[in-house]
Amino acid sequence: MASIFTKIINREIPAEIIAEDENFIAFLDIMPLVKGHVLVVPKQEVDYIFNLEDEVLTGLHIFAKKVAKAIDKTIKCTRVGVAVIGLEVPHVHIHLVPLRTMDDINFTRPKLKLTSEELKEIGDRIRKGIPVQ
Amino acid sequence: MASIFTKIINREIPAEIIAEDENFIAFLDIMPLVKGHVLVVPKQEVDYIFNLEDEVLTGLHIFAKKVAKAIDKTIKCTRVGVAVIGLEVPHVHIHLVPLRTMDDINFTRPKLKLTSEELKEIGDRIRKGIPVQ
Repeated sequence: MASIFTKIINREIPAEIIAEDENFIAFLDIMPLVKGHVLVVPKQEVDYIFNLEDEVLTGLHIFAKKVAKAIDKTIKCTRVGVAVIGLEVPHVHIHLVPLRTMDDINFTRPKLKLTSEELKEIGDRIRKGIPVQ
Repeated sequence: MASIFTKIINREIPAEIIAEDENFIAFLDIMPLVKGHVLVVPKQEVDYIFNLEDEVLTGLHIFAKKVAKAIDKTIKCTRVGVAVIGLEVPHVHIHLVPLRTMDDINFTRPKLKLTSEELKEIGDRIRKGIPVQ
């Protein structure tokens, strides 16, 4: 069965997509730890990041770097933190989390509940920080 | 002033070094979240991971993948989680954390206190999982 992320890639379920190319996609986490929390996902449906081929792994991180720079420019934070956990959705995803404190990247704390309007406003903001290719 | 990680690289302070090449080093975190918690560090002293040149960033992640595979083989866990936070030591470091639950990668919880004998035993175990090049 297609993962929830593959369904986003295939536009079967909606998401605030931040950036996309042939191999990778970035969109807002709908259960964010903080505002501006983005997931970066390879289109190839692999469960575990360390099972990605080197070329895909490095492409994913270069893509994530571009997105992180856009977050840095557009969302108030000290820096963008990175986490890859993968105990829930079996499709590789890098969390990019705008940080001010260590607790901002604590996945055991309650998630924010944002309206679709709030998500769109955040998505618009970050998209503006990504230079057009 | 040299960062604490540069001092480890220069052998000015001791560490349980897991793997090292010309550009990168991996060693046990002495304040681990769980047993087998490793830090992967570029020898180049840069504060923020997204300020690394693409070539260094990708080299770092390929190096981290090798170390993660050794942790997977030698430390009981569901998978190895990844975190880059960087609010404390101003020298890029990837945390590789053997995970069983989400709380295993919660940086706000108290750290383990391990003796140097325990750290050495864990270091020996992980080093055995890294193929000789």
